[in-house]
Amino acid sequence: MQLILDKQGTLYEQIARSLKLNILGGRLVAGSRLPSTRTLAIALGVSRKSVIEAYELLSAEQLVSARGGSCTRVADIGGAAAVSKRSRVLSVSRYATRLRKLPPLQLAIARLDTRPKYNLQYGEPLLNRALLNSWRRKLAAAALRAASTYPDAAGFVPLRRAIADYLSRRRGVICHASDILIVGGTQQALTLVARVLLNEQEHVVVEDPHYQLAMHSLLTHGARITSVRTDSEGIVVAEMPSRATRLAYVTPSHQFPSGVIMTLERRIELLKWAARADSWIFEDDYDSEFHSGDRPVASLRSLDLSERVIYVGSLSKTLFPSLRLGYIVCPKGLRDDLFKAKQLDDLGSPAIEQAALATFMQSRQFDNHLRISLKEILIRRRTVVESLERLEPHIEIGPHQGGMHLVIWFRQLRFSQLDRFLKHARSVGLGLDPIHPYYRVKPSRPGLIIGYAGVSNAQLKTAMDLLARCVEAI
Amino acid sequence: MQLILDKQGTLYEQIARSLKLNILGGRLVAGSRLPSTRTLAIALGVSRKSVIEAYELLSAEQLVSARGGSCTRVADIGGAAAVSKRSRVLSVSRYATRLRKLPPLQLAIARLDTRPKYNLQYGEPLLNRALLNSWRRKLAAAALRAASTYPDAAGFVPLRRAIADYLSRRRGVICHASDILIVGGTQQALTLVARVLLNEQEHVVVEDPHYQLAMHSLLTHGARITSVRTDSEGIVVAEMPSRATRLAYVTPSHQFPSGVIMTLERRIELLKWAARADSWIFEDDYDSEFHSGDRPVASLRSLDLSERVIYVGSLSKTLFPSLRLGYIVCPKGLRDDLFKAKQLDDLGSPAIEQAALATFMQSRQFDNHLRISLKEILIRRRTVVESLERLEPHIEIGPHQGGMHLVIWFRQLRFSQLDRFLKHARSVGLGLDPIHPYYRVKPSRPGLIIGYAGVSNAQLKTAMDLLARCVEAI
Repeated sequence: MQLILDKQGTLYEQIARSLKLNILGGRLVAGSRLPSTRTLAIALGVSRKSVIEAYELLSAEQLVSARGGSCTRVADIGGAAAVSKRSRVLSVSRYATRLRKLPPLQLAIARLDTRPKYNLQYGEPLLNRALLNSWRRKLAAAALRAASTYPDAAGFVPLRRAIADYLSRRRGVICHASDILIVGGTQQALTLVARVLLNEQEHVVVEDPHYQLAMHSLLTHGARITSVRTDSEGIVVAEMPSRATRLAYVTPSHQFPSGVIMTLERRIELLKWAARADSWIFEDDYDSEFHSGDRPVASLRSLDLSERVIYVGSLSKTLFPSLRLGYIVCPKGLRDDLFKAKQLDDLGSPAIEQAALATFMQSRQFDNHLRISLKEILIRRRTVVESLERLEPHIEIGPHQGGMHLVIWFRQLRFSQLDRFLKHARSVGLGLDPIHPYYRVKPSRPGLIIGYAGVSNAQLKTAMDLLARCVEAI
Repeated sequence: MQLILDKQGTLYEQIARSLKLNILGGRLVAGSRLPSTRTLAIALGVSRKSVIEAYELLSAEQLVSARGGSCTRVADIGGAAAVSKRSRVLSVSRYATRLRKLPPLQLAIARLDTRPKYNLQYGEPLLNRALLNSWRRKLAAAALRAASTYPDAAGFVPLRRAIADYLSRRRGVICHASDILIVGGTQQALTLVARVLLNEQEHVVVEDPHYQLAMHSLLTHGARITSVRTDSEGIVVAEMPSRATRLAYVTPSHQFPSGVIMTLERRIELLKWAARADSWIFEDDYDSEFHSGDRPVASLRSLDLSERVIYVGSLSKTLFPSLRLGYIVCPKGLRDDLFKAKQLDDLGSPAIEQAALATFMQSRQFDNHLRISLKEILIRRRTVVESLERLEPHIEIGPHQGGMHLVIWFRQLRFSQLDRFLKHARSVGLGLDPIHPYYRVKPSRPGLIIGYAGVSNAQLKTAMDLLARCVEAI
């Protein structure tokens, strides 16, 4: 008998596992006697206590039978070499095969290395202590009140009502609470929609630039992706394929990541295209709250007479991303399918957070929070834009009416110089994301995405000065 | 122009929507003048304020242009009959087609009608005020501490460590925190596993009786299901198909819903079968905590030398179902696939609840809670079993070493009499689930599932007296 301790877990677990391997592997046959605990302890150079505990574990698991402690015998588990090690690699699904072929993610989200001092990368939330404090109180109250049994898979009814009210009040989207499905964020919304709509090899249109994890989700579902260029009015509908398409994934209120707001004309064109191509439209109303002007352009959903727009929103930007709550306003034709798909996916989102969110949205605190956030975002946006305007000989500034980031394009810098630029910026404390990884068709010149939610306005001023010096140095 | 108000939402929204339909439908052409607010208000019999607000909404959405308030004209949205109503039904995926063909759910979970006074249906959690109070404090503390940015999709590292520790301490499962994936409960675990392993039309073995939502999930993924009978030792491995099988879904520590604990011999047989059939095993360690005896039989995972067991646990039973947190101990060969599938599914589970759970599991409170719960469960189980034993001329009692429910079988009652029996029980306040809907092959006689977690021991005594009278009345 060979006992090799694998150094994982406590000593007694290692001893027990090693003995177990010998029993299951048939090297210790049924009825054979294990060494006494004292003998084995000496042989292994461990305390007797560890060996006793290991024997007790095996005994509790019925792999050995102990009589009086002195004599421990291997139980009959039905023949030698009971369970062999695997000889070959087990196969996985086509889904997993596609998963393995995905290009690596190039997103702030995927990075877990040390944080830069001034983090202007995309995806940082706008946070304030007051929000966390009210959220904390809402959660604590909801923990006592929320039902502890299985939640309604479609979502907590008062939350769905609060969202319907919010959408009509602030987004001009009129819908019924009963058409709203609560999901774990936009990513889950896309997964559910893809599952319900897409067979492998069917056509999907995605904007370019695009959100990488949405692209990954669609690719893994087996979609054939057509990337369609965006210009200053949004996706270029004239260049969209005329063949039958299953789904178009768009971000009209704030194109990700370019920041373009899709014009009304383009929206109407897109809906006409959808009717011709017999396509559904996934309207990701991502980052729609923090616009400089008045009420934004009408949502695709509110322009849609044919119930083919799937409107999706998230609380990741207005509250914080780790909340993982969002919603789908389901078109009638897909409502029951999406509800059932959500139930089969995870039986519904967590009840306490849903209840907390419902009271938060119903209270004045939510509107207050949005007002305060917008004010702060506008201040920071001005800091960023004013500072960037002084660099206009070197850079071009992208649209910046909304959201919590903008894009700048270098006028002279070449791609070959970009890495050195980013490293230099990093060395002075600036965390910056290049923009080209968000494109499927690489743009003609390099650019940066500048997020301004994760740092205070004071820090932002310093950061922008540092950025100016980096840009002027090239 | 025809204005029909659809009675959905506020009056101004109805007016705006009705006008919008006319504009988008091309009945109000570009440049044409809308009636004055006063004229329209009179025509519709509504207040002028509602019409003004409707015009303002349309103006903000750029569908009309107002000049000075008196003259509102339809904007040019690119041609008449811009967006037509849909003429035909859009198609959905094969997944959704299968979804639509699922048999209706017959589970307590699916019911939302009035609660019976004594609810002995399956799925009610064991609750106590102390648990909710500590959970509330943990949540509130975590809300201030947890990162608000996107969580690690695989799960919060301290929680994964706490679960690895718990599994080794209480379940005899030795694993690394890095192999643990946090998911939104067992249902999501199954969805992720199915996606990563199953192509349509591949073979999956499911125990009979079985958990309906697991069956639904597998059917919707397109699996070809072989239901295999269980007896008093667990799934009858001798009757499992010898052909190549992709996955076997089993509940060894407490067969759902029969309550049978799979014997060690059967576990070894099952692992041998998996090696022959080249199958993965989904070990749903559902409801494993509340056993009467000592440490339960070794888990399949701890007997598995070939890394083909996917061990899944949930906090739904030990804490409460609305928490929606569980975990997968991933076999090495599937770890990266499952991690990535979770990321693409929903970017990870909510951060605050994960952080709260981590501190709860690390603290003594969790073990205390388990100890108190076990004590309470044992008391109630005794109440139920002692009361049922007096009915043994009429019924047979199923296994009841673990879990929070048991099954009883009628000796004489026929299926044709069952409905009347259940209605009678309901009329005296008893909520009872029949057992046969959990079977794919209908059992020879009717039975009931008796859950004893959702009512106090005092109530349980009354409920069992009521049940005795109902049984004796037949």
